Amino acid sequence: MMKVFIGLVHFPVLNRRGERICSAITNLDIHDIARAATTYGVQGFFIITPSRGQQDLARRVSAHWIDGVGGQFNPDRKKAFDIVRVVADVNQAVKEVESDTGTRPALLATSARELPGCVSWENFEKRVYKNEFKCILLLFGTASGLHQECIDQCDGVICPICAGTDYNHLSVRSAVAIVLDRISRFRRQ
Amino acid sequence: MMKVFIGLVHFPVLNRRGERICSAITNLDIHDIARAATTYGVQGFFIITPSRGQQDLARRVSAHWIDGVGGQFNPDRKKAFDIVRVVADVNQAVKEVESDTGTRPALLATSARELPGCVSWENFEKRVYKNEFKCILLLFGTASGLHQECIDQCDGVICPICAGTDYNHLSVRSAVAIVLDRISRFRRQ
Repeated sequence: MMKVFIGLVHFPVLNRRGERICSAITNLDIHDIARAATTYGVQGFFIITPSRGQQDLARRVSAHWIDGVGGQFNPDRKKAFDIVRVVADVNQAVKEVESDTGTRPALLATSARELPGCVSWENFEKRVYKNEFKCILLLFGTASGLHQECIDQCDGVICPICAGTDYNHLSVRSAVAIVLDRISRFRRQ
Repeated sequence: MMKVFIGLVHFPVLNRRGERICSAITNLDIHDIARAATTYGVQGFFIITPSRGQQDLARRVSAHWIDGVGGQFNPDRKKAFDIVRVVADVNQAVKEVESDTGTRPALLATSARELPGCVSWENFEKRVYKNEFKCILLLFGTASGLHQECIDQCDGVICPICAGTDYNHLSVRSAVAIVLDRISRFRRQ
């Protein structure tokens, strides 16, 4: 069965003006994405930010739910936070996946924009079905999405979630949930 | 094409001890669900709470993004909030859907728990495919989910989102996104 890891990228991402920024961590991103990832059997959820202060913040939030009173109050949340890891950049996330699994993951970007050469969902489904991927690391951008230099670093980019309207402004929390549900369906078929 | 409406229920719902409560509105629920609903062409998103104070809060948040500086800053968010409506209870939501569409919607509950007689996703897909539903109003519970008296009021309840693990603790924001994506797929087939 294909192993799935996900990374939530805070740098390099775009702001609303298309400029390269480092975004701030959103507490609810960690909760919602950790819960969805655990529900779908994801092996690891990387919070990716080079900012030491933001790394400390993410670790402090996680510790509250793993070792602190949060975990005592809500053991389900503790289980979700168990898969959260904080890393400085995408390379470090790739290295950790390699170290865990013995396999270099296929590094796949996601985007709400139709990018040249993006892999359609139909094609991605066929490739998962044919067991082409032993292990994938899916990257999701915060703010207004992944910067091109992050996308260029990937092995491929998956086409936007098509929903049959001209409006496509999902929160990253919703996008992760939908992508994991689709992939789970492909793996079960 | 089947019309889809959704309702986010704050009363009657369950707390962690299984008691009947009225939950507080979560700002990010409104944002995330309005964005997902607009992305998937949902016709209306009802915030359901009998509390006048909470209704006022939900309307104030919406007004900020529709008529206030929020909408000027972010026109995409304005479009998402355009489908938000605040009502006191499920009956009022049903009446508004009837008034909009001329059809009484099939009232469908969702649940993270396997309830007796719940409609499987496979069965639901077939029924959508056969155009059995002209219009549906999907109810999602906040806190620890819909109270039984709300479920009893519905025409049916859809089985939990199955993800192949024994962990099933999605946020309501994630659950709405996944359910809308699945239904969108059924409608396109």
